[in-house]
Amino acid sequence: MKKILILGGGGMIGQKLAQKIVREQTFEEADITLFDRAFPVGDLGLPAIKGNIADPAISQKLAAAQPDIVFQLASIVSGQAEQEFELGWDVNMMSMWHLLNALKDQHDATNGRYCPRVVFTSSIAVFGGPYPDKIGDEFLSAPLTSYGAQKAACELMLSDYSRKGFVDGISLRLPTICVRPGKANAAASSFFSGIIREPLNGHEAILPVQDTVRHWHASPRSAAGFLTHAATMDLARLEGRRALNLPGYSCTVAEQIEALRRAAGQGAVDLIKHQPDDAIESMVASWPRNFDPQRAIALGFTSENSFDEIIKAYIEDDLDR
Amino acid sequence: MKKILILGGGGMIGQKLAQKIVREQTFEEADITLFDRAFPVGDLGLPAIKGNIADPAISQKLAAAQPDIVFQLASIVSGQAEQEFELGWDVNMMSMWHLLNALKDQHDATNGRYCPRVVFTSSIAVFGGPYPDKIGDEFLSAPLTSYGAQKAACELMLSDYSRKGFVDGISLRLPTICVRPGKANAAASSFFSGIIREPLNGHEAILPVQDTVRHWHASPRSAAGFLTHAATMDLARLEGRRALNLPGYSCTVAEQIEALRRAAGQGAVDLIKHQPDDAIESMVASWPRNFDPQRAIALGFTSENSFDEIIKAYIEDDLDR
Repeated sequence: MKKILILGGGGMIGQKLAQKIVREQTFEEADITLFDRAFPVGDLGLPAIKGNIADPAISQKLAAAQPDIVFQLASIVSGQAEQEFELGWDVNMMSMWHLLNALKDQHDATNGRYCPRVVFTSSIAVFGGPYPDKIGDEFLSAPLTSYGAQKAACELMLSDYSRKGFVDGISLRLPTICVRPGKANAAASSFFSGIIREPLNGHEAILPVQDTVRHWHASPRSAAGFLTHAATMDLARLEGRRALNLPGYSCTVAEQIEALRRAAGQGAVDLIKHQPDDAIESMVASWPRNFDPQRAIALGFTSENSFDEIIKAYIEDDLDR
Repeated sequence: MKKILILGGGGMIGQKLAQKIVREQTFEEADITLFDRAFPVGDLGLPAIKGNIADPAISQKLAAAQPDIVFQLASIVSGQAEQEFELGWDVNMMSMWHLLNALKDQHDATNGRYCPRVVFTSSIAVFGGPYPDKIGDEFLSAPLTSYGAQKAACELMLSDYSRKGFVDGISLRLPTICVRPGKANAAASSFFSGIIREPLNGHEAILPVQDTVRHWHASPRSAAGFLTHAATMDLARLEGRRALNLPGYSCTVAEQIEALRRAAGQGAVDLIKHQPDDAIESMVASWPRNFDPQRAIALGFTSENSFDEIIKAYIEDDLDR
């Protein structure tokens, strides 16, 4: 029996992850608990605890149950972290500090027998330009957003607590997850999903940037796959470098639109309205465009090889017909 | 009048820095305050405050004086951070967090008029192997010690608080500082200084590693120079990448010993006794050996170009005759 705790379990990826573990029986037996500030309508039938991850007492309480695997997906998005500076550092960095110390307390209390797997969703926001054409596995982390700095600081803590044997952790630098189901969110990257999702649902979508913009994508299905692979693989294979650039698919917005045309025809494409937004354009210009994630591929992480596949995953998993 | 606060002002580099600022009149007028847990015998004639940098109330108090320049050199050494895990994170990371928040409080209280220069001594310990032959300016920070992880986390915080305009910070990844005056300390790197310093003073020295070991050095004089340069240069030139690999001199222990022979003769060299220590040998094997610090050189940071120069700096500045 694996005791599994999903922090941020009410979010889109947390829900996909929980469903995947249940559906695919990733573990022979799994006792899953979700934790988040709020949960979507539509009960997964799993225990769900509401609370604020930034509260140290919450970490102590959650760690006291000694979960075998902790997925740490809880965070506020980059736009909010940029606007609410203190809140960003509290939620996105200090909560990792509290969590690791709480898990270490359990480790110490059991004379080291307790050592949970911790899978942390970091982000390609740990990188800042100028970039090479393809970002390699040895490229520096020099973030240009608070969100990126907070994720990078968490990676460092998780690596060191792991090196000392208190936990067994891995940080996954997720590509932009696309196509996100549901409504648009406040993230500046939201349009990458919107221009596909809205037309497939018969709605208009706003494209705020030039169609020459190149970006790095993976589907929600791949994200859930990254997480279960990270939870089950032998982390000794990381050889001490516990933060990983993940595979994804690099393409321009024009290529995204061509894939939409192949999937749903010109009528869908006609629903995309180009309304340039200088603020979004300049923010997106600072983001990574392409990677060469050799380590992650060698370690068995997989994602889509075309944007057609990414659209197909959305249609199969999320499109409401 | 520049108000200058030197945290870690009782340490070897803090004392060298204060002396340099006074002697060379780096600033037209300087009001220097030293802060540390303890101070060496031999008063510099400067205000000196004793306290624990890990105490948040101390940061609030020191920030309330609104220093124009804060040198943050206070830290526990790598060996101690490795042995006393909680203490290491408290002193080496959380104290930066408290300091930055205290400085931001002053920034906020003055409606943003207060924005101090913060010069932080990071370390080449932010790097972990495997390394390229020469570590470039874009090589990842993947530390393999708690000390390195703590320094790297501080760099991230300082960069982000700077990007937001709360402080104007720079992180200097110091080479191993050699030849350290005074007594040997608990650092595993202590012998790099010991094998030069002890013979020059007529004492025996222990060499715990093979003389083929290569390492990256700069003198205490260069360290003080790095700090004053960082305090006075225009940090806009960093273009957002505020952590800097500094220049140094890469050589083997055999080359160090040859330079000692040239400076003080065979009699001095004969005082070095080779006593292999597997623990030190394996720790040193994991350290960076060489760098290609193009950015720092372009930004005007300078250090020695030979180990002879490094020995000369010790003889001129520190050797008791």
